Amino acid sequence: MKIKQLKLHPIAVADGPLRSSYGLHAPYALRTIVEVVTTDGITGISETYGGDGPVAALESVRSRVEGMDPFQLTAFRQYINAQAVEAAGGARSQTWLVPGENPLDTHARTFAAIEVACLDAIGKALGRPLCDLVGGRCRDRVPYSAYLFYKHAGGGGMGDDVREDEYGEILTPEAVVRSCKQMVAQYGFKEIKLKGGVLPPEEEIAAIRALRQEFGPKYPLRIDPNCAWSIDTSVHVGESLKGELSDGGYLEDPCAAIEGMAEVRRRLLANGNDTPLASNVATTCFAHVPVAKETDGVQIILSDPHYWGGIGAQQKLSDLCEVLGLGMSMHSNNHLGVSLMTMTHAAAVCPALTYACDTHYPWQTSVDEVIVGGRVQFEKGCVVIPDKPGLGVELDYDQVARGEERYKKLPYRKRDDEAEMCKHVDPNWKRILPRW
Amino acid sequence: MKIKQLKLHPIAVADGPLRSSYGLHAPYALRTIVEVVTTDGITGISETYGGDGPVAALESVRSRVEGMDPFQLTAFRQYINAQAVEAAGGARSQTWLVPGENPLDTHARTFAAIEVACLDAIGKALGRPLCDLVGGRCRDRVPYSAYLFYKHAGGGGMGDDVREDEYGEILTPEAVVRSCKQMVAQYGFKEIKLKGGVLPPEEEIAAIRALRQEFGPKYPLRIDPNCAWSIDTSVHVGESLKGELSDGGYLEDPCAAIEGMAEVRRRLLANGNDTPLASNVATTCFAHVPVAKETDGVQIILSDPHYWGGIGAQQKLSDLCEVLGLGMSMHSNNHLGVSLMTMTHAAAVCPALTYACDTHYPWQTSVDEVIVGGRVQFEKGCVVIPDKPGLGVELDYDQVARGEERYKKLPYRKRDDEAEMCKHVDPNWKRILPRW
Repeated sequence: MKIKQLKLHPIAVADGPLRSSYGLHAPYALRTIVEVVTTDGITGISETYGGDGPVAALESVRSRVEGMDPFQLTAFRQYINAQAVEAAGGARSQTWLVPGENPLDTHARTFAAIEVACLDAIGKALGRPLCDLVGGRCRDRVPYSAYLFYKHAGGGGMGDDVREDEYGEILTPEAVVRSCKQMVAQYGFKEIKLKGGVLPPEEEIAAIRALRQEFGPKYPLRIDPNCAWSIDTSVHVGESLKGELSDGGYLEDPCAAIEGMAEVRRRLLANGNDTPLASNVATTCFAHVPVAKETDGVQIILSDPHYWGGIGAQQKLSDLCEVLGLGMSMHSNNHLGVSLMTMTHAAAVCPALTYACDTHYPWQTSVDEVIVGGRVQFEKGCVVIPDKPGLGVELDYDQVARGEERYKKLPYRKRDDEAEMCKHVDPNWKRILPRW
Repeated sequence: MKIKQLKLHPIAVADGPLRSSYGLHAPYALRTIVEVVTTDGITGISETYGGDGPVAALESVRSRVEGMDPFQLTAFRQYINAQAVEAAGGARSQTWLVPGENPLDTHARTFAAIEVACLDAIGKALGRPLCDLVGGRCRDRVPYSAYLFYKHAGGGGMGDDVREDEYGEILTPEAVVRSCKQMVAQYGFKEIKLKGGVLPPEEEIAAIRALRQEFGPKYPLRIDPNCAWSIDTSVHVGESLKGELSDGGYLEDPCAAIEGMAEVRRRLLANGNDTPLASNVATTCFAHVPVAKETDGVQIILSDPHYWGGIGAQQKLSDLCEVLGLGMSMHSNNHLGVSLMTMTHAAAVCPALTYACDTHYPWQTSVDEVIVGGRVQFEKGCVVIPDKPGLGVELDYDQVARGEERYKKLPYRKRDDEAEMCKHVDPNWKRILPRW
C-alpha cells in the first residue's frame, strides 16, 4: 500500500460572531480537508487548519507524501522536522497568535494532517477503528465540555448564506447561563468552559458564579481569557473563583507566558489556593513541557492533535504528562466532524487526558458539515468511538464541494480576529495584553 | 482476531562463566518463550526472563490474555498496572538486583512479554514487520556493541552438555583486547562496552586504555561496573579515562543511586570533564527519569523493552529522552534470537536511541538457539530488520523442547550470581557496594 495521490480541499465554514481576547470571529472559518488515496483504492481523510498558509505547507510535502507507505510515519516525521525551521525553546512561547497559527509549529501541523489521513487509510485497509491501530483505546467514549463564548447576536455566514443561530447575543451572566442550558440540554455536556478575556473581569467572575449557581458543583467550571489579564488580575480572579474553579475545574492561560503563570501559581498557593492553571498558549510544543513542570507555571496542558503533531504526538504528550505528573485536557478550534472524530480517537488513546475536551462543534451547523450522514451525534456529552474502520466517517463530496465554493468566494485567506473586531465592533480595537 | 491460547516455554540456555559485580553467571541462564495463538491460527511470539517468578507472573494474567483482542494493548496495560504493587518512586531505585529482577517492575516485564507477542501476531496477520506497525521505523539496521566480560576459562553448560568457548579466560587487559578483536572480527561491531566492577579499578582502567590503543578513537568505549565503585573511585576512573570515555562513549552506573551519580557528575564537570554518565541500575522505570534529569545524575538512559514495558514503552522512553534532552542506549541480559529481534525492532522505532545497543548474543551458541534457521546474523555490527512480518523469526519447536528439557533438569529456578560465585570462586564472596 502506497499513497498514490494527496488531495487538498480548502473550505469555508460559517461561524458566528464569537468573541475572545484575540478579537471577533469572522463570518467564515477556514479549514482544509485532506485526502490520501492509496494504490489499492483506499482513501484516508483528515481535517486541518485552513487558508493559504496551511495549504502551502501541505503542498510543500506533496512530492514526499505521494509514493509514501502510510505505515512509515516516523520516517516522514523525521523528514518534515528536518525541513522545519527549528527555533530555541523560549522563542516558541508566544501569546499573540491563536493556538495553531504559530509559524514555528507549521511542521507539526502539516505532519498531523498527513498522519491522521494515513492512519485513517490504514484503519480502512485493516477494518479497524483508528484508536485501536496505535496501541488500543483506554476509553470507548470521549467526554466534551460545553464551550461557552461571549458573542454578538446572529449566526455565521453572510449575504444569502446566513446560518440561523439559536444562542443570540451572549454578553451578560444571564445570557451565558442561558446558552449553557441550551447546550447542556442539546448535547448532554457535564463540564463547562467559558471563553473569557472579553468583558471586564468582574463581569466574567459573575458569569462563572452564575453558572455554578445554576449547575451546581457537579459541573466542573473553567475560564480561559487567553492571557488577557495581568498577574495581579489573574490572582484576583483566581482568588474570587477559588471555590468555583478548584472543584475539578481550572484557570486557563490567565496571563501571558509560563513565567507569569508561575508567579500567579506561587501567589495563589501562598494563599492556600491550589486551583490548577491550564494552558494552550504558554505551552504549545514539547519544548515547553519541561519548562511548565520546572516553573510550576502550568499544571494542566491542553493538547490538540492538530498542532501538537497528530495522534502519536497526543500519546507522547499523555506519556509525558503521566511521567511528569501533569494533567491533560484538549484544546479546540472551529472544526467539522472529521476533526471531531480525530480529537475523539486521539483522546481515546491518552490515559492522562482526564478532563472533558473542548469543542467548537456546537457553534457550527449541519449546513457546513462535510461527512456522510450529517453531524456527529453526542451521547450524554460524549462522542462514542464508532464500530467502523479508521476515523469512522466518510466525506460527503457534495458538501465538500459546497465548502470549496464558499472558500473561493471569500476575500480572505487567513484568520484575522483583530481585523474583524475593527470592522464590526470598534474601528480602533487592538489586542492589548494585559487588557485588565 | 482474539487470543485463543497463551503458551509458556521455560527454557535453559548455556552461559559461560562471565563475571560482574553481581558475581558469576551460572552454567545456564533461564529464559521463557511466550506464544499467543489467535483464533485465526496465527502465533505471535516473544522471549522474556526465565525461572519460576516470571512464569508465575505470566500465569497470573492467563485468564485476562486468553480471549483478548491483541490490538487492545492500552487496556491490557491499564489492567496489569492496576494489579501491580505500586511503590513510591524512591523505593524503586535499587542497586542490588540485576536489572530486570526488581519485583516492583514485574508488571512491566509481564506486559512486555505479552505486548511483543501480540504485536508479532498482528504483524503476521497484516504481513508487516513489527516496527512498521507502531509508527514505522527510523532506521533499517540497528547497531550493536561488542559487549566484553571478564570471565573464567570455559564455556556454558555442564556435564555432557558443555558448549565450546572461543574466548577462554579473560582476566587481563590483553585478554580483554583479544576477546574484543575476536568479537569485532566475527560480528563487525563498531562500539565497545566492557562489563567492569570485577577487578581492581586500575586493572579495568588499563583494559580500557588497551582497547583504545588497539582500536583507536573510532570505536567509542564504555565501562559499566554496576555500582561497584565509591563516589571517589568513580571520579578517579572518570578522570583517568576522560579521553577514552568522552569520545562517544560513557561511564555507566559507576556507583550506587542517582544521587551518588549526581555527585560524580558535579565533580567531573568541575574538572571540565563532561564524560556522560549512563544508567540502567539507578534508572529502571519512568518514575526515575525526571529525577535523573533534575539531579543531572544520568545523561544517558539504557532502555530495554523486556523490563521497561515493551516496544511502546521504548518509544515512550525515546520521546521522554528527546523532550528532556537525555541520551538513550539499550541494556541487555542473556538472550536468544527472539529477544534480539525484539530489541532490534524496538531500537528501530526510537529516534533518541543513538548508541549501539548492548547484546549478550555472542556469549550464546547455536546449540541453544530456538529460532528457525539458527542464529541471527549480524551485518557489520548491525542486525537488519528482516523483510518479514512481525518480529521476522519463527520458533524451532524441537529446539524449544530441548531448552525445556534442559530447564527441567536444572536444580535452580532463579538467577543467583552470588551463590555461583561462592560455589566456584570464593566460598565467602559477597556483593559489597562500594567494593572499591
